[in-house]
Amino acid sequence: MLRVRLDLAYDGSGFSGWAAQPGRRTVQGVLEEALGRVLRIDPPRVTVAGRTDAGVHARGQVCHVDVPATAWAAAPGRSDRPPAVALLRRLAGVLPADVRVHGVAEAPPGFDARFSAVWRRYRYRVADTPYGADPLLRSFVLWHDRPLDVDAMNAAAAGLLGEHDFAAYCRPREGATTIRELRVLTWERTADGLAVATIEADAFCHNQVRAMIGALLLVGDGRRPVEWPATVLAAGRRDPAVVVIPPHGLTLESVGYPPDAELAARARAARNVRTLR
Amino acid sequence: MLRVRLDLAYDGSGFSGWAAQPGRRTVQGVLEEALGRVLRIDPPRVTVAGRTDAGVHARGQVCHVDVPATAWAAAPGRSDRPPAVALLRRLAGVLPADVRVHGVAEAPPGFDARFSAVWRRYRYRVADTPYGADPLLRSFVLWHDRPLDVDAMNAAAAGLLGEHDFAAYCRPREGATTIRELRVLTWERTADGLAVATIEADAFCHNQVRAMIGALLLVGDGRRPVEWPATVLAAGRRDPAVVVIPPHGLTLESVGYPPDAELAARARAARNVRTLR
Repeated sequence: MLRVRLDLAYDGSGFSGWAAQPGRRTVQGVLEEALGRVLRIDPPRVTVAGRTDAGVHARGQVCHVDVPATAWAAAPGRSDRPPAVALLRRLAGVLPADVRVHGVAEAPPGFDARFSAVWRRYRYRVADTPYGADPLLRSFVLWHDRPLDVDAMNAAAAGLLGEHDFAAYCRPREGATTIRELRVLTWERTADGLAVATIEADAFCHNQVRAMIGALLLVGDGRRPVEWPATVLAAGRRDPAVVVIPPHGLTLESVGYPPDAELAARARAARNVRTLR
Repeated sequence: MLRVRLDLAYDGSGFSGWAAQPGRRTVQGVLEEALGRVLRIDPPRVTVAGRTDAGVHARGQVCHVDVPATAWAAAPGRSDRPPAVALLRRLAGVLPADVRVHGVAEAPPGFDARFSAVWRRYRYRVADTPYGADPLLRSFVLWHDRPLDVDAMNAAAAGLLGEHDFAAYCRPREGATTIRELRVLTWERTADGLAVATIEADAFCHNQVRAMIGALLLVGDGRRPVEWPATVLAAGRRDPAVVVIPPHGLTLESVGYPPDAELAARARAARNVRTLR
């Protein structure tokens, strides 16, 4: 078996999220089927860095798949391309236009797309005009019908940074830790007038990004004071005033990995933390 | 009657072009119906700067509509907003998400959205990667499966600038002139890796932009020499090698008007040119 790293992008609009589910169109399902077709093997199992919810998009999603060495060697067919290049091109022809694999490479030793990852970075995009989002961008931009104060949202975001128990912003899951390290949470006004949040952590629990961004929007449009999101965090339990905002404004932009020499150690450590914490 | 200028954007994917046609969903049809609803009048007739084909998008489209003064004055309802602001907000609520009116204003004297315009600027966006277009941008970016040489396309484009009879790049129409002044035609490689053409003229004839960009793509991927597009132009008739490329890569970005004092004179002159040339 040979471990292959795949970098991919998708428009989440047409998918019931990442994870394969019987009878649903999911990114994992579509990708595994395409890999099986192109490699002429049974659809292999793919492991992903960030399991995105229904409607959430990705630009820099990362996954790995273990491929029989014979199937890998056969990928170029009669072409003289390296297997990675051949696989990239054949996936481009087989995958639907809403999923694109933009990188294929033999993974370095110890690489695990999920457990070797040191951070995940998302962006949430908001149009706060009175007339709505640019029609060409509307599939990945939320329309918020009140003007947003980016400075106020940045001040509120600063109160959430660092390692905390984010239970107040997570959908509870039996036995799972809700301790996370929030490394980046900043808002900026882009050249095209959007308010865009960049949010990065070692990992996120379920609904966390959309709940936190939702709390900050209430600060941005003046309905809550700047201190409110940190007060909710400190309370440690779900506040009904915190709304999980729609998924379509959210995009997984990139996933960070340590230097190759640390991949295996990082994966071991992360597996332990997820189990023990 | 009061003349109102509307600035609007649309995703052309779901429309049979701009112009109203019985039984088809068109931008004009949807907009006129929304105006009728919001102003509580019979759907008024709208005049547009650039009649886009089916599948072509717009960000900076401009049109005008003549509105009874009583309907205009009644637009704010019980709110204390100026009529233009009230109309913008109510259109945002009534229009589908793939059409957005982002500007409403009383037009200056002599303004005609079509005939006062001095230039139209379009962009054509191309992804020339082996793996396809970013899924989130795919509705307005063409995937061209061969690498493009932007410098070669710029060199070829220079041979098309200026006032010419563009018959070689126009779908013939009885009695219509095909003389146009091409003011700008440049390619650039954007930060996100796309090859983007900016093309600006006093006006364009039917299919002209997509035929010219199609010719330049053949230069960009090395299938035709740099001189070829200008040679086709000089020949003065359609060359079967020139392909009208798909509409979805094309977006009308903006429309230029002269200073207010020259609007009426410009409209008179343009009407004469279109008729007499």
